[in-house]
Amino acid sequence: MGRWEADAAGRLRAAALELFGEIGYEQTTVSAIAARAGVTARTFFRHFADKREVLFDGAERLQQLMVDSLVQAPPGASPLDAVAAAVMKAGDFFDDERRPYARLRAFVIATHPELRERELIKMARLSAALAAALGQRGVDEPDASLAAEAGVAVFRIAFAQWVAESEQRGYREIVSASLARLRALTKR
Amino acid sequence: MGRWEADAAGRLRAAALELFGEIGYEQTTVSAIAARAGVTARTFFRHFADKREVLFDGAERLQQLMVDSLVQAPPGASPLDAVAAAVMKAGDFFDDERRPYARLRAFVIATHPELRERELIKMARLSAALAAALGQRGVDEPDASLAAEAGVAVFRIAFAQWVAESEQRGYREIVSASLARLRALTKR
Repeated sequence: MGRWEADAAGRLRAAALELFGEIGYEQTTVSAIAARAGVTARTFFRHFADKREVLFDGAERLQQLMVDSLVQAPPGASPLDAVAAAVMKAGDFFDDERRPYARLRAFVIATHPELRERELIKMARLSAALAAALGQRGVDEPDASLAAEAGVAVFRIAFAQWVAESEQRGYREIVSASLARLRALTKR
Repeated sequence: MGRWEADAAGRLRAAALELFGEIGYEQTTVSAIAARAGVTARTFFRHFADKREVLFDGAERLQQLMVDSLVQAPPGASPLDAVAAAVMKAGDFFDDERRPYARLRAFVIATHPELRERELIKMARLSAALAAALGQRGVDEPDASLAAEAGVAVFRIAFAQWVAESEQRGYREIVSASLARLRALTKR
């Protein structure tokens, strides 16, 4: 995919989120998204199956980034430290430039049950992928699943804070704080 | 609901799970479930909206049982101890008599993506309900959500072990062990 094409995908994503915010998810058509991005509907369909996919097409790349990070964690890292490295690595996606779009996306998903379900499925897949990667590092069950679920819980809760309107801290700072809270909560 | 009616619901549940195991979920009709339970299809529909509901109608009662248990935990209990009490309390549902049906149910759900999604939604609702109950105990965010998610993770993973064919231990014993593993994994 050339630079023009890659830019088209980015413009389509931005256009879709703007329209979802302005006129609502249901009212937004593929034609309107394409027009706002300055491309044809045909170009839209070269990048996304439908308007829902605009919200979720980054999920696989994010999961791969996180799994790769877990796999590459130092051999001596504990299961939770390896998962924590993966959750921190997701910060490459979640910079301040992306924050307004992430807020809009979170709002659209929160207000549509079928999108919330899709998001839940995505999180369950992420948890299973992280548990499998821990398994490859020699971590047995149920430890692999427990550490993966704990990490995904931190990820979900930190992400929800990061997109909250009142939140000023960056993604990584929030993850660190959430992880510290989890450790404190589970301490005997 | 009289005793005869309550028995009908139980017989319908058992009949449905037997048929799901014998001929498969798709192939099982409401008529066949009713016939196996010795009641009419009309009686089936007095208890369940459709065959899928047979698998999920206990979810709300289970959630209420767990929330009540969390609310009634001693005032000095830590957030995780209160959630752990709720997860242990679910053991009232999961006794050895129910285990063969729970195994069948888990198998049917695992092999049907739309049922797996329904189960994910159920778990997300349970987590939100437990977090809200922690909030009423004065636990702030993100601690309430983190403790609830950690507890639901223990619940899911312990339940999956409990229904595994090779597993001999009872539900509460597995929950205790999983909780101890979670504490060990999150220890600095």
